[in-house]
Amino acid sequence: MDPAEFRRAGHAVVDWIADYWATVERRPVAPAAPPGTVAAALPSAPPTVGGEPVEAVLADLDSIVVPGLTHWQHPGFFGYFPGNTSGPSVLGDLVSAGLGVQGMLWASSPACTELETVMMDWLAHLLDLPERFRSTGTGGGVIQDSASSATLVATLAALHRASGGRWRHTGIDRRYRAYTSIHGHSSIEKAVRIAGLGSDGVRSIEVDPDTQAMLPDALRAAIEADLASGDVPAIVVATIGTTSTTAVDPLPEIGAICAEYGIWLHVDAAYAGAAAVCPELRWSHAGLEYADSYCFDPHKWLLTGFDCDAFWVAHRAELIEALTVLPEFLRNAASESGAVIDYRDWQVPLGRRFRSLKLWFVLRWYGADGLRAHIRSGVALAARFADRVRADDRFEVAAAHPFSLVCFRLRADDDTNAALLASANATGRVHLTHTRVAGRYTLRLAIGSPQTTEAHVDEAWAVLCEAAATLPTAQGTGS
Amino acid sequence: MDPAEFRRAGHAVVDWIADYWATVERRPVAPAAPPGTVAAALPSAPPTVGGEPVEAVLADLDSIVVPGLTHWQHPGFFGYFPGNTSGPSVLGDLVSAGLGVQGMLWASSPACTELETVMMDWLAHLLDLPERFRSTGTGGGVIQDSASSATLVATLAALHRASGGRWRHTGIDRRYRAYTSIHGHSSIEKAVRIAGLGSDGVRSIEVDPDTQAMLPDALRAAIEADLASGDVPAIVVATIGTTSTTAVDPLPEIGAICAEYGIWLHVDAAYAGAAAVCPELRWSHAGLEYADSYCFDPHKWLLTGFDCDAFWVAHRAELIEALTVLPEFLRNAASESGAVIDYRDWQVPLGRRFRSLKLWFVLRWYGADGLRAHIRSGVALAARFADRVRADDRFEVAAAHPFSLVCFRLRADDDTNAALLASANATGRVHLTHTRVAGRYTLRLAIGSPQTTEAHVDEAWAVLCEAAATLPTAQGTGS
Repeated sequence: MDPAEFRRAGHAVVDWIADYWATVERRPVAPAAPPGTVAAALPSAPPTVGGEPVEAVLADLDSIVVPGLTHWQHPGFFGYFPGNTSGPSVLGDLVSAGLGVQGMLWASSPACTELETVMMDWLAHLLDLPERFRSTGTGGGVIQDSASSATLVATLAALHRASGGRWRHTGIDRRYRAYTSIHGHSSIEKAVRIAGLGSDGVRSIEVDPDTQAMLPDALRAAIEADLASGDVPAIVVATIGTTSTTAVDPLPEIGAICAEYGIWLHVDAAYAGAAAVCPELRWSHAGLEYADSYCFDPHKWLLTGFDCDAFWVAHRAELIEALTVLPEFLRNAASESGAVIDYRDWQVPLGRRFRSLKLWFVLRWYGADGLRAHIRSGVALAARFADRVRADDRFEVAAAHPFSLVCFRLRADDDTNAALLASANATGRVHLTHTRVAGRYTLRLAIGSPQTTEAHVDEAWAVLCEAAATLPTAQGTGS
Repeated sequence: MDPAEFRRAGHAVVDWIADYWATVERRPVAPAAPPGTVAAALPSAPPTVGGEPVEAVLADLDSIVVPGLTHWQHPGFFGYFPGNTSGPSVLGDLVSAGLGVQGMLWASSPACTELETVMMDWLAHLLDLPERFRSTGTGGGVIQDSASSATLVATLAALHRASGGRWRHTGIDRRYRAYTSIHGHSSIEKAVRIAGLGSDGVRSIEVDPDTQAMLPDALRAAIEADLASGDVPAIVVATIGTTSTTAVDPLPEIGAICAEYGIWLHVDAAYAGAAAVCPELRWSHAGLEYADSYCFDPHKWLLTGFDCDAFWVAHRAELIEALTVLPEFLRNAASESGAVIDYRDWQVPLGRRFRSLKLWFVLRWYGADGLRAHIRSGVALAARFADRVRADDRFEVAAAHPFSLVCFRLRADDDTNAALLASANATGRVHLTHTRVAGRYTLRLAIGSPQTTEAHVDEAWAVLCEAAATLPTAQGTGS
């Protein structure tokens, strides 16, 4: 495809996306077709002769692929956590794809590394993160694909520290332990397993029944018990905004415990970290000065397309020492000068895309004020929805909602709530997911799309009320 | 940014990329500016008020970022391994960014999973991979970000198998060992370290001095020695196309050894796997029927932008059992039915982009014949360059060149060869990198860009000859 063909086809694809965004609201949020529907509509082998115009592929996108999607950019999408992109993010990613450079080393394409360092400092400025995370000191930031990978590399650096620097050579030779609350994300167990501690290496710490946040006394007790049996506490993962309910673990108390015992503190703010762009929501980050590492996902609630996890460490030398491997074919004068960052040593894979471009486009398009307005809109819409729930005796709010997630349920048993979720989602007008809070089935409504307005939240409430009215045990008093 | 604004700005970005591609050849392949040049040209904080038009960002791209890039899409880029993209790949990625869906679960956007499964089967068909890797049997394919991550997940599944199914719970409780040749990629040591075996867990097996390929007898001896001292052989990583010289490890012999001892065989064909689209190059994949897992990178030599590593396993159940973690918030009826694939259990991160779209666009645009023509062009250009080297008494070819990489050197000492590389690269007309073969500094010229023609290869040779002529110890006889 030469540049002229690309220009023509590229305009067609841009137009296709603009049309998709303009019409996505008219589609069912999620498909109803059974497994295998999309695959069955595709040929079983690639064509021998190419040359199909892009328009033919776009036509198959329309007829085969799009009907099989759950539409994460739909204003009625309230599932999981938001994963919203934006026009400037897509365009930044497009430039990255077009340039096609590799940022594994500074030397492999210097601007790719330098823009990333500056963008991570911009984000640290925007969230008012502690100075120790800025590139001007001992720390620094890097883009990971996801918070899962951030937790993994934090765990590896923590193991290296806990081993006294032996780990990179000898591996797991003691019973190292990791601590997180029972609401810590599943990626923590996965990271600990990947790192060779087994699922048994995770200590799940109880939470306060009112706040769903980690109990510092329970953390201390678990650490003491492990020390007494000769285990080695290596890392605590605290969460700002748990996946179940957006609970905020008490960092000041947890951080003091980590400092006392010399344990690495990683803070996972994957979803709620974005809230710190608003000064009035920065209470959630109190105690962050204790953290050895921290991450949040601009790809969740900051209008930047997946994948873009922003990860910082307070002491970059520890991370690099844990992860670096230097084969001859990557040696170069710039790396050996010590004057540059080679981000390959900050992550699992060797290769890296030019992901900071999308942050650059997003930050310049929205500015700090625009991002704050986006976050505030989500918080206000969540409060609006929670008010509806509270005003209806059939329902209850199941947890605090400081950000843009509301956990709620019918005052009924688990099966009835599961039926409510299935019934509401079956309308195709909304898509919600669920969790368990204190063992009870609980619906989650997560807001994050810039297209989601009061009308969409009100419609979600109407859909839920209609669905509830059809459930045998949930008709109650109404409102 | 509303759809109308996106349409306008998107056309501008597409045009910018088309212009970049049309003019990249006129730029120096790599920048000469010192570290910090790009960062110094950027503001230290993001704007408070947004709304900068995309044209302003594109202007800064032109003035600040592009001059700081090493241009991987330049026809004079011969470094590392190729990392070439193409128009259809960029457009497929653009659609993925615009849709912004999450493929972590089948249920989180079904078409994202189903298209990926079909595309992996298409690739298996195209490379004529063993039936055991197809989704119709016990195996299956998945897109990883890179071969590094493929090696890591293969290692984890291998550990789980070697432990008799204990590993996911108890972690590393014995001295597990991994084996690869001294030319195995650095990502193997990194994966083994991440998995908790330490760098000490890697056994580096000697190579045949003529072919630079792993010596099966040396592998067997290392396994026997480890068994004798109570260590547990867990995985062998064999390479089709090593990074240093594109050596091909003898899979038939290595595979028989792995089968004899019950050791997981992972085959890393990151670069050279693409060659198997051509029947006449499939000799390189002989013995692949022994492999438990295999990967190659369409993002290296198959016109698909980074990141796109194609990874297959022969028994998907083993991989899934090793990696799955199931929190309440990801439970859903489709997963519990067992009728769907949840690719989150095939990789390290939870989240996933819709990466199969770019494969779909590439395979339909080029067709099998177009991809074969691309590979054959690279092989022929490499042979042309090697002929030039052989015809000049000052130079020598340092290793066989079955694919599109030529290793060569001046008949001179290491410092002279390093000076040759620096001098040639300083022209800005070419960019090569180096390795060591049998301890000696060796230049690498890797071909992969669809824009690279005979004229570019001849120019590279001319640049090298000019550079050699200025070196004090390398003027020799000439040709």
